[in-house]
Amino acid sequence: MKLIIGSKNYSSWSLRPWLLLAHHQIPFEEVRLSLGSAEFKQQLATYSPVGLVPVLQDDDLVIWDSLAICEYVSEHYLNNQGWPASAMVRAQARSASAEMHSGFGAIRSQLPMNSRATGRRVPTDGQLAKDIARIDQLFNRCRQTFCHQGPWLFGQFSIADCFYAPIVVRFRSYGIVLSGDGQIYADWQLQNPALQQWISDAEQEPEIIPGDEVGQT
Amino acid sequence: MKLIIGSKNYSSWSLRPWLLLAHHQIPFEEVRLSLGSAEFKQQLATYSPVGLVPVLQDDDLVIWDSLAICEYVSEHYLNNQGWPASAMVRAQARSASAEMHSGFGAIRSQLPMNSRATGRRVPTDGQLAKDIARIDQLFNRCRQTFCHQGPWLFGQFSIADCFYAPIVVRFRSYGIVLSGDGQIYADWQLQNPALQQWISDAEQEPEIIPGDEVGQT
Ligand SMILES: N[C@@H](CCC(=O)N[C@@H](CS)C(=O)NCC(=O)O)C(=O)O
Ligand SMILES: N[C@@H](CCC(=O)N[C@@H](CS)C(=O)NCC(=O)O)C(=O)O
Repeated sequence: MKLIIGSKNYSSWSLRPWLLLAHHQIPFEEVRLSLGSAEFKQQLATYSPVGLVPVLQDDDLVIWDSLAICEYVSEHYLNNQGWPASAMVRAQARSASAEMHSGFGAIRSQLPMNSRATGRRVPTDGQLAKDIARIDQLFNRCRQTFCHQGPWLFGQFSIADCFYAPIVVRFRSYGIVLSGDGQIYADWQLQNPALQQWISDAEQEPEIIPGDEVGQT
Repeated sequence: MKLIIGSKNYSSWSLRPWLLLAHHQIPFEEVRLSLGSAEFKQQLATYSPVGLVPVLQDDDLVIWDSLAICEYVSEHYLNNQGWPASAMVRAQARSASAEMHSGFGAIRSQLPMNSRATGRRVPTDGQLAKDIARIDQLFNRCRQTFCHQGPWLFGQFSIADCFYAPIVVRFRSYGIVLSGDGQIYADWQLQNPALQQWISDAEQEPEIIPGDEVGQT
């Protein structure tokens, strides 16, 4: 099984399935392409019909979207344990993950993921404040509801945690602190060895994408 | 089971789970809120933590995203038949659906869904042309690959068809014609009785959202 990803410093969508695989110690070959480089699209064309990372190649099968990859990994390598076992909790974890998949445009555009960056500050406009407030609400509600089942968003580690990991990494870079249990959850995510591995790999990467280097230090 | 949706004329995200339920004739109560009205957010607040439609309420459970709703309906009311039975085909159908969930920004912003509109024309910039070309490629590849298994995108009717129905409705409104099997598939979708029901319901709706009325006639 081959996971094609972008730069670990910048590729937020790549982090999601990578974290699912790494956290569960599922063996896979990592193919890292330099996001934004001249060769990126050309190298990627051999793997994907869409020209975006991540892509999972498992024998003849090509899966070209991070959420679909996570669903597949859960079905085939995790005996469905990628999602909470309870149908009701699973539906909520899928809602949160799909909400992330289609939303949070202000966070995406104004706080580009920059795994190795710390101490950056950006101005917060109304849309960004709204996105951050929704994250704060979601993290707090989830932790208050599922705290008895474990320290993750929905109790046990799930795909939803993989989907919110890039957010936690961004908030670390830009000094955004959440309220109460929201920040406790963010801190918990950040000390996950798999996520720490991703960040330290990013620190070793030489490439710089100027457009994604935002914020005052 | 209650499905809270927006106006059938304008709410593209609402169409997806509605079509899944209607096509399979699963009984549900439809609660239609007038998208863009003064009361919309207030009425919706009683159902959803996010303020977006669609929302599915099933007893105590609230599911607040169209993809998560479809996954839940497939698990609980369709014995998993919302997705193709083959694991390999399912992974591709989920890729296509999640690609739609997170992408096609130019189609979304430049071709707002307007179910009852026909004969509209809008200028096509580079981004829009790229989105349309990707749809053309996806429809053609899917039909060429899965034509022996049925007339839908991945053979049998699946959640992926529900996710691309709003696209087909838009292309009808704005006169966008696809190549070869792509257009055959689009025409096939449009004659689905459940989708025709949605369009004729939209024709009865009185409300108008001026910002979504685009294009020359
Ligand atoms: N729906 C896709 C979106 C992936 C995506 O947007 N990837 C970005 C990098 S994080 C990309 O490949 N960008 C390359 C480009 O736009 O050229 C997924 O979830 O995998
Ligand atoms: N991720 C959501 C997105 C839903 C969405 O954006 N809904 C739009 C209407 S189609 C909405 O409720 N807009 C109301 C508003 O923005 O006030 C889903 O898939 O259900």
